Amino acid sequence: MKTPKSIEKVISHFESLPGIGPKSAQRLAFYLLHVPQEYLENFSDSLRTLKENTFICETCFNIGDTQLCEICRSDNRDRSVVCVVEDPLDVVAITRSGKFDGLFHVLHGVIDPLNSMGPDDIYIPQLMKRVTNNESEIAELILATNPTMEGEATAMYIAREVEKMGNGVRVTRIGRGLPTGADIEFADEITLERALESRREY
Amino acid sequence: MKTPKSIEKVISHFESLPGIGPKSAQRLAFYLLHVPQEYLENFSDSLRTLKENTFICETCFNIGDTQLCEICRSDNRDRSVVCVVEDPLDVVAITRSGKFDGLFHVLHGVIDPLNSMGPDDIYIPQLMKRVTNNESEIAELILATNPTMEGEATAMYIAREVEKMGNGVRVTRIGRGLPTGADIEFADEITLERALESRREY
Repeated sequence: MKTPKSIEKVISHFESLPGIGPKSAQRLAFYLLHVPQEYLENFSDSLRTLKENTFICETCFNIGDTQLCEICRSDNRDRSVVCVVEDPLDVVAITRSGKFDGLFHVLHGVIDPLNSMGPDDIYIPQLMKRVTNNESEIAELILATNPTMEGEATAMYIAREVEKMGNGVRVTRIGRGLPTGADIEFADEITLERALESRREY
Repeated sequence: MKTPKSIEKVISHFESLPGIGPKSAQRLAFYLLHVPQEYLENFSDSLRTLKENTFICETCFNIGDTQLCEICRSDNRDRSVVCVVEDPLDVVAITRSGKFDGLFHVLHGVIDPLNSMGPDDIYIPQLMKRVTNNESEIAELILATNPTMEGEATAMYIAREVEKMGNGVRVTRIGRGLPTGADIEFADEITLERALESRREY
């Protein structure tokens, strides 16, 4: 039994997404055969224009709809504390907890030598520039990378680099209310609140 | 924190798919921000053209790339046995087992009064026409709807209707090698083989 090519294409696209296996991909494609063409076109358009009007903030590298993101533009935020995270979904999770009113810095990855990702392949140099900038108001960096091997290594690297600079910026690591090996973006609000409260000197 | 509209749109589309929750949808959308625009456009095109060159077979209502599907056109199949299934993925699963060389009839659903799906809302009338057609070579119907409440009810309904016709067509139910409540499309080949072998009179 040959599946029509147009269906095969959709299956293979779904299959390439993280967390979607061959069976689920097949199921999704056949499910979509039953939805109105109009819906398919809307879905199709939304994918095509996903990156339109989407910017990487020039200061914190978060994803937003303007050159300078909403958080960096805000007047109600504590500009002396910067929370360093791996990716934009971590920003979503932490702001949702409502317990952090500082700024962010999104690394867009972690140091991961096995996948040949070094400090310069993620936004670490830009973080260093932010910290050493003469106009910088930063007094504390909260390192909120995931509590995985790579996340810990990345936090440790950043902590050492900032220490080397010797400009007195306090470096803390997000508290281990988070179980090791977990993912920040899936943590519940209370766990995140505890983790923020129990941050410790690096 | 506001997520850009273009991202929200993609999230809501993914969320509307079966088996994808809000967190997974968010993750998929943010994942797609990192893929090349070309890939997004291919994905987008594949969705838009999903239904192009996709036909519902005029005989068995399976999904294929021609008016009359590959299985109905084939000369190497036993035209005296018709396997009645709920949806096209069941055809894929059963042909993959390699233990069935008859024809199919795809109902595209089940009788489900709670969702106001009656026998005439799925392809049961067309099945009856196939069975009563003067040129019909059908000697046996294998009812291979899922072993769920609705699937069983649908099988029972079809069995009774065929019996009423009194034209001597044998009606069997696929063997219960399948655990109750499971889904045919996810069964392994051996389970499907056993189930085909152990079919019994209805």
